[in-house]
Amino acid sequence: MSVKDVGITVSKDKDFSEWYTQVILKAELADYSAAKGFMVLRPNGYEMWEKIREFIDPRIKKTGHRNAYFPLLIPESLIKKEAEHFAGFTPEVFWVTHTGNNEIGERLATRPTSETIAYHSYAKWIQSWRNLPLLLNFWNSVLRAEITGTKPFIRTSEFLWQEGHTVHENKEDADKEVFMILNLYRELIEDILAIPVILGKKTEQEKFVGALYTTTLEAIMGDGKALQMGTSHNLGQNFSIPFGIKYLGRDEKEHFAWQASWGVSWRLIGAVVMVHGDDKGLVLPPKIAPIQVVIVPIFFSDDDKKNVNNMAIEVQEKLEKAKIACFNDSREQFTPGWKFNEWELKGIPLRIEIGPRDFREGKVILVRRDTNEKLSIKYEELIDNVNSTLEQIQKNLFDKAKKFLNEHTEKIQNYDQFKNVLIEKGGFLKACWCSKQECEDQIKDETGATIRAIPLEEEPIWSNCVYCGNRSNQVAYFARAY
Amino acid sequence: MSVKDVGITVSKDKDFSEWYTQVILKAELADYSAAKGFMVLRPNGYEMWEKIREFIDPRIKKTGHRNAYFPLLIPESLIKKEAEHFAGFTPEVFWVTHTGNNEIGERLATRPTSETIAYHSYAKWIQSWRNLPLLLNFWNSVLRAEITGTKPFIRTSEFLWQEGHTVHENKEDADKEVFMILNLYRELIEDILAIPVILGKKTEQEKFVGALYTTTLEAIMGDGKALQMGTSHNLGQNFSIPFGIKYLGRDEKEHFAWQASWGVSWRLIGAVVMVHGDDKGLVLPPKIAPIQVVIVPIFFSDDDKKNVNNMAIEVQEKLEKAKIACFNDSREQFTPGWKFNEWELKGIPLRIEIGPRDFREGKVILVRRDTNEKLSIKYEELIDNVNSTLEQIQKNLFDKAKKFLNEHTEKIQNYDQFKNVLIEKGGFLKACWCSKQECEDQIKDETGATIRAIPLEEEPIWSNCVYCGNRSNQVAYFARAY
Repeated sequence: MSVKDVGITVSKDKDFSEWYTQVILKAELADYSAAKGFMVLRPNGYEMWEKIREFIDPRIKKTGHRNAYFPLLIPESLIKKEAEHFAGFTPEVFWVTHTGNNEIGERLATRPTSETIAYHSYAKWIQSWRNLPLLLNFWNSVLRAEITGTKPFIRTSEFLWQEGHTVHENKEDADKEVFMILNLYRELIEDILAIPVILGKKTEQEKFVGALYTTTLEAIMGDGKALQMGTSHNLGQNFSIPFGIKYLGRDEKEHFAWQASWGVSWRLIGAVVMVHGDDKGLVLPPKIAPIQVVIVPIFFSDDDKKNVNNMAIEVQEKLEKAKIACFNDSREQFTPGWKFNEWELKGIPLRIEIGPRDFREGKVILVRRDTNEKLSIKYEELIDNVNSTLEQIQKNLFDKAKKFLNEHTEKIQNYDQFKNVLIEKGGFLKACWCSKQECEDQIKDETGATIRAIPLEEEPIWSNCVYCGNRSNQVAYFARAY
Repeated sequence: MSVKDVGITVSKDKDFSEWYTQVILKAELADYSAAKGFMVLRPNGYEMWEKIREFIDPRIKKTGHRNAYFPLLIPESLIKKEAEHFAGFTPEVFWVTHTGNNEIGERLATRPTSETIAYHSYAKWIQSWRNLPLLLNFWNSVLRAEITGTKPFIRTSEFLWQEGHTVHENKEDADKEVFMILNLYRELIEDILAIPVILGKKTEQEKFVGALYTTTLEAIMGDGKALQMGTSHNLGQNFSIPFGIKYLGRDEKEHFAWQASWGVSWRLIGAVVMVHGDDKGLVLPPKIAPIQVVIVPIFFSDDDKKNVNNMAIEVQEKLEKAKIACFNDSREQFTPGWKFNEWELKGIPLRIEIGPRDFREGKVILVRRDTNEKLSIKYEELIDNVNSTLEQIQKNLFDKAKKFLNEHTEKIQNYDQFKNVLIEKGGFLKACWCSKQECEDQIKDETGATIRAIPLEEEPIWSNCVYCGNRSNQVAYFARAY
């Protein structure tokens, strides 16, 4: 295989979709599977998911949540209890009808989400305000048949996620939960994944059907399309009433409980690819990178080989001691050039090159993945330099993405401009809206753009409704979205 | 609710099965679910599973394995590729036949195990010896319809487990993998779960159908029945041939690869209950206990309350600083007596009682869950005492279980003795066997006992075959098993 076959053969700007697929497959984050519409999460991708879990999990525990596991299969009768919410999932549900050669009495759905199966148990477990709040989280996979083209991490018939499901005494407590989690997600996405987001509420049309309201975090991908990065819902009493989740209150009266639910999925990995990747492949922010630094020893003679390899091992040991995740690529069957390409393709944030001259001069070369910048540094200042460079890379990737987001957020004055901006560069279109679903629907039909979010803080109005021209009463972020 | 309703109402000796179910439900490790045959893993149980994962996961990574995730649904055509191995699962498979209202073209199985779906990908990924060994592990759930009575953790239609699937150049490397993992499992089960095991090979009859040979770890539960705690298989070339997992060898010739697979499941949690539990409920070895120490402040006057509560908080902080997992039970709506019962039921290894007199004398009381022993210790010697007591509990639980195992391992001279011991006390029956499957089958039919393991090291023979009386050539551990 030549480097050309191994490397990315299209430009991010020219064919974003093909570029994306090539990066996913060639960086070995994921692969297609024997089951149509499904994907395999390969170790390089799984380790990113582990990083996400390592960040989120201790934080949700620290705020009093605990993990649990609910069954994959949900009896149809349970689903019918909350038919309104479930209706949205109905066409996507995989139905189990047989075990072995026998038809089973009642069909079982593979979970598209766990509300119904979990809340059936919650109703049993909750009797009194003393049992509240109930704060649980599930790490699992959910299944929703995707009929249209598979897109790894973004559109697959099964995905890994975490789903939090909490129960509270009143609306205020559920509200607090919703925003506490929203903020935790913002931290994960901005501080760890280096992807700036806008926070907001979904419209009635776009919210989770079972929710009183839905909050969301939205980002812009490299092609100008929006991606919903996570959601946090106040479910009100929409489930507690049909499922009978009641508690004896401090007032000694019976009340239906209030609930919240929230989740992020492996699509965050897809977002990292789409936001930070470039024509050479993946670019990983150091905080999500399973390997932060790759060491490549370079030599031409046997004498040099020994010295350089020894120094590489020393560097590796130093980095490991400093808790920097590194890999010493001492493989003999590949040239340094091949290795550079491979690790650039795989997005490793920082490369350390050690050659015979570096060895003699007590120096090493750092090469940044994000800027290609080369730095020659003194060996004794290695750890400080690596740490500060990793920090700079993390910051630079966020800043670049923030700049891109700003350049792709346009304040819209009228519908012509709306349509032009959408065609020319996409991104978020910030427009005034009359709050009527008709206008929202018409815009969607005519342009493909939906309202991604209503800002959490009310913003001043600068025009009439971008579609109907009548009085507007709020600002909305529109975009074409995945 | 009275303490009687909350606590365990049957004795472990009198009705082991009912006792087991009560402990599981009342200690809130698990609950039955709306889906028949399935169970909910509640936080108390999930945290034990997390402890198991926290032990195993870094160790399998350290030995070069990496995690991945394969799809839940497996096309029937893929399954037919290796029909022989899959035949064993056929009656237990849940079949997906519809999405939404549409029948799908090809039925999909919910994974009963991932060999087929994974090896389809492996065949794509492996070309050369340079791609070997491929060392992957999956944390997921698998589904096998259990028609007979549900037994939480032991017999449920879905269970959490890890399944390792590795590919090697030759048989020797696969052998090494099998035994390396077997030994890792032994460490987990003996050192962490405090359950002594016997290691061995399965007979042809009892091995995993797809395996060249199966190694196993077997333990004896509190009722004298055996439980298979984990297995590690050398799959030979049984899958690499039908799935086309071939590689270009160092000899430049094409070879079919050699494979191993291995797994442990949440049934280990059931084993901890069955081995260590007593009439008061669960007894957790400190190394698997999500909470190792519970602090119960005791007071009768408001003056004492403040002092005692402050001291409890101090104790908590000291323990946390020493990385001892603790919970300060300062709940006001429950009496100390209620709390003692609750935490004994939940199996917390050590209780610290702090009363007004203890406060004044600068002492605290430690109460061991395993022995009920009370120790009055000086406050300044708290951490040393807690640490050493936790170690003693861990050791005592293992020693007790080892003694039980020894008392329930009987060297058998003849078939009458075999049947008598089985009826009187169960456990392992160590007997000489002629290696004929006929005898194995007859014994199973007549007594319900199966061969759990053949010792890894050959042992001297002391009698003719326990069943047919002909020349025997090996020693086998028989038992009735879950």
